Amino acid sequence: MNILIKNASVLTMTDHAELINNASVFIEDGKIKGIGGNSENLKADKIIDGTNKLVMPGLINSHTHIAMSLFRNYADDLPFWPWLTERIMPLEEKLIPEHVYWGSMLSIVEMIKSGVTSFADMYFFMDEVAKAVDETGIRASLSIGMSDSGDQDLKINNAKKYYDSWHGKADGRITVMAGPHAPYSCEPSFLHKVINMAAEKGMGIHIHLSESKKEVEDSYNLRGKSPIKHVHDLGLFELPTLAAHCVHLSDEDIAILVDKKVNVANNPGSNLKLGNGFARVEDMLKKGVNVALGTDGSASNNNLNMFEEINLAALVNKALKGDTTSIPAATAVKMATLNGAKALGLEKEVGTLEVGKKADIVILDLNKPHFYPRYNLVASLAYSAQASDVETVIVDGKILMENYELKTIDVEKVMYNAEKCAKSLIK
Amino acid sequence: MNILIKNASVLTMTDHAELINNASVFIEDGKIKGIGGNSENLKADKIIDGTNKLVMPGLINSHTHIAMSLFRNYADDLPFWPWLTERIMPLEEKLIPEHVYWGSMLSIVEMIKSGVTSFADMYFFMDEVAKAVDETGIRASLSIGMSDSGDQDLKINNAKKYYDSWHGKADGRITVMAGPHAPYSCEPSFLHKVINMAAEKGMGIHIHLSESKKEVEDSYNLRGKSPIKHVHDLGLFELPTLAAHCVHLSDEDIAILVDKKVNVANNPGSNLKLGNGFARVEDMLKKGVNVALGTDGSASNNNLNMFEEINLAALVNKALKGDTTSIPAATAVKMATLNGAKALGLEKEVGTLEVGKKADIVILDLNKPHFYPRYNLVASLAYSAQASDVETVIVDGKILMENYELKTIDVEKVMYNAEKCAKSLIK
Repeated sequence: MNILIKNASVLTMTDHAELINNASVFIEDGKIKGIGGNSENLKADKIIDGTNKLVMPGLINSHTHIAMSLFRNYADDLPFWPWLTERIMPLEEKLIPEHVYWGSMLSIVEMIKSGVTSFADMYFFMDEVAKAVDETGIRASLSIGMSDSGDQDLKINNAKKYYDSWHGKADGRITVMAGPHAPYSCEPSFLHKVINMAAEKGMGIHIHLSESKKEVEDSYNLRGKSPIKHVHDLGLFELPTLAAHCVHLSDEDIAILVDKKVNVANNPGSNLKLGNGFARVEDMLKKGVNVALGTDGSASNNNLNMFEEINLAALVNKALKGDTTSIPAATAVKMATLNGAKALGLEKEVGTLEVGKKADIVILDLNKPHFYPRYNLVASLAYSAQASDVETVIVDGKILMENYELKTIDVEKVMYNAEKCAKSLIK
Repeated sequence: MNILIKNASVLTMTDHAELINNASVFIEDGKIKGIGGNSENLKADKIIDGTNKLVMPGLINSHTHIAMSLFRNYADDLPFWPWLTERIMPLEEKLIPEHVYWGSMLSIVEMIKSGVTSFADMYFFMDEVAKAVDETGIRASLSIGMSDSGDQDLKINNAKKYYDSWHGKADGRITVMAGPHAPYSCEPSFLHKVINMAAEKGMGIHIHLSESKKEVEDSYNLRGKSPIKHVHDLGLFELPTLAAHCVHLSDEDIAILVDKKVNVANNPGSNLKLGNGFARVEDMLKKGVNVALGTDGSASNNNLNMFEEINLAALVNKALKGDTTSIPAATAVKMATLNGAKALGLEKEVGTLEVGKKADIVILDLNKPHFYPRYNLVASLAYSAQASDVETVIVDGKILMENYELKTIDVEKVMYNAEKCAKSLIK
């Protein structure tokens, strides 16, 4: 199906934040075929009037655990260890594949409704997540989260099998990474196995690094070096790496991230809520680290709203630096689009609106009071916009939501089943 | 008109966060006449089905400059002084009463749509703001912002006249405070005049205090004491005071705020965006200061979304303290409701849902993916909810918005005129 979006404000995000007014976007065979002013001669099966609307690249949630939406608002305002060991882990132990499926579906509904077109996920029962991605039409980079406990070789084999089953599937919308959970949950010998397996398969690595102060202190106590230096010395960064969090970094850590071109998923909402503090986002960006944005899971956020993360990234770093120019609006939006695409290894496919790229596009309705007056749409995205302004979402050239209505998902059924799963977990 | 809300989850916010399930709220003559389970025998002109809805006290925006929404997204990511002197002040000099009226109307639309039922405002051409409050049905504490420049006695007289014209008007929905802008813009002799005038009239004081590091440093350099100590020594705190910001405080400052029962309006979004840093919210609350929440003006936020401020208050203080238990959800919601009512001197009238209080009530639609699963509604308000979940708003027993539709305002006309005003300001 061809789609023509006409008369819109088009934010390409190519040169930071290029905005073309009264422009059209033409979509064919899942790709962007044209962007510009003249759409008179174009024929399309579907025409969307973009008057008073903003067309932009879909947002990319570069780190999450979507099935954890089943634990949303279940355990809050608690110290970290009781939260994790007394509340979250006992529920996780009860999870069955069906729970992960409905938790994933709930999160995909929430993400589509808030303009997310791609996400990077790490959890277990990941076949269920892949199934949900396949059915719903969203794009994802998926990884089985692995710790060193239990049968390590079986885990390595399962990760291989998962790659073979799902990488490149769902019309190419699914990619698969290896997911060693973190250096504190994966001993060096296991990390070596994961690295070897990933190198053999050509997989990237999705890992948690330097999230809490305690993790970094423990690493120095145990190994005399930071988690970043530790996994670097193990050779992990020889593979394309998506490192979630990276909150507590030394200058040497940042130099390593730059040198090894490690992608960082900054999760301001989760880092604040879990009391982990403030990542050195401006320092990383200035040195040349690719910093993307993520929500983390809904057990520590408690939603998957990337507009909140954009807003937080733009606000918190200004206060941290005492500098109003830190992380300007365009940078925060870029973190959630192009930087996210790079972090997922998809920068040639998505992340900007460019001819030849895949059509992962969201349309915002600007006819809302908080978009008036209309001075600067990029600033308004970072400082005024709401997830609920997202009206239409297109992934791979297919409309997943139109005029606020989801096209591939029965939302009521998903909410009903998610609630049912939650009830069975806590009974 | 009588209104009966049935079958709802009712969050009274009386004992921090009392939640009554499957309850009704009965409203008569602008007041809450009943809250509870049994509504069988009640007759009402209007019945609202609260199934899958949350009924709670309206949010109170305890510090803003609503007409500044005309400058929303006009000047962002700039250093403070160029932002103020080269961008904002030149526009402010061009303002005429008509601009202030339409800027105020735009903000009132935005506030009602996001669940705000009362706000505390300080600006100029305040007759226009009062007119907008009167027409739209919202509740407000209004003050003319005053600096010491120009004819001081005329300013004092105008403040008196404003009090006489508007205090207690609009069916009692308008209260008036004196608005000396800040100690750095009001010399001590002028502050004395304001204090005398306010004492004579029985007015409270709305003032900016200790917003930026520079302001506090300048105060120490000039007077050898903090802005808080300075105005305390002038006798300002002998009157009920609403002190906006209070970001940079010493322990002695906090002791003064406690001792003099000063109300603080914390504006996390604005403080972060202007690089002013992090207020000591937890320290103030623990010592017994009444800390409310505000958005500040849309030139430094850039919206009037109190759900974002609730979320920021709950998140940022956890990171600051490295403590996940800092500012739990119920506390953040209380800051935006009861604490706000206290800050505006309205705690006997609004701020909680209690029999005998005025019916300032908002209803949220919980049938959204981010409200599932349904473990803890108070946590969901602080961590998951969106301003766009507000479906119905009642002020003084009158419905201002029902099922997302504004009843007292022509929204399209307001957005059109706000845009027109903005265009005339920048041409």
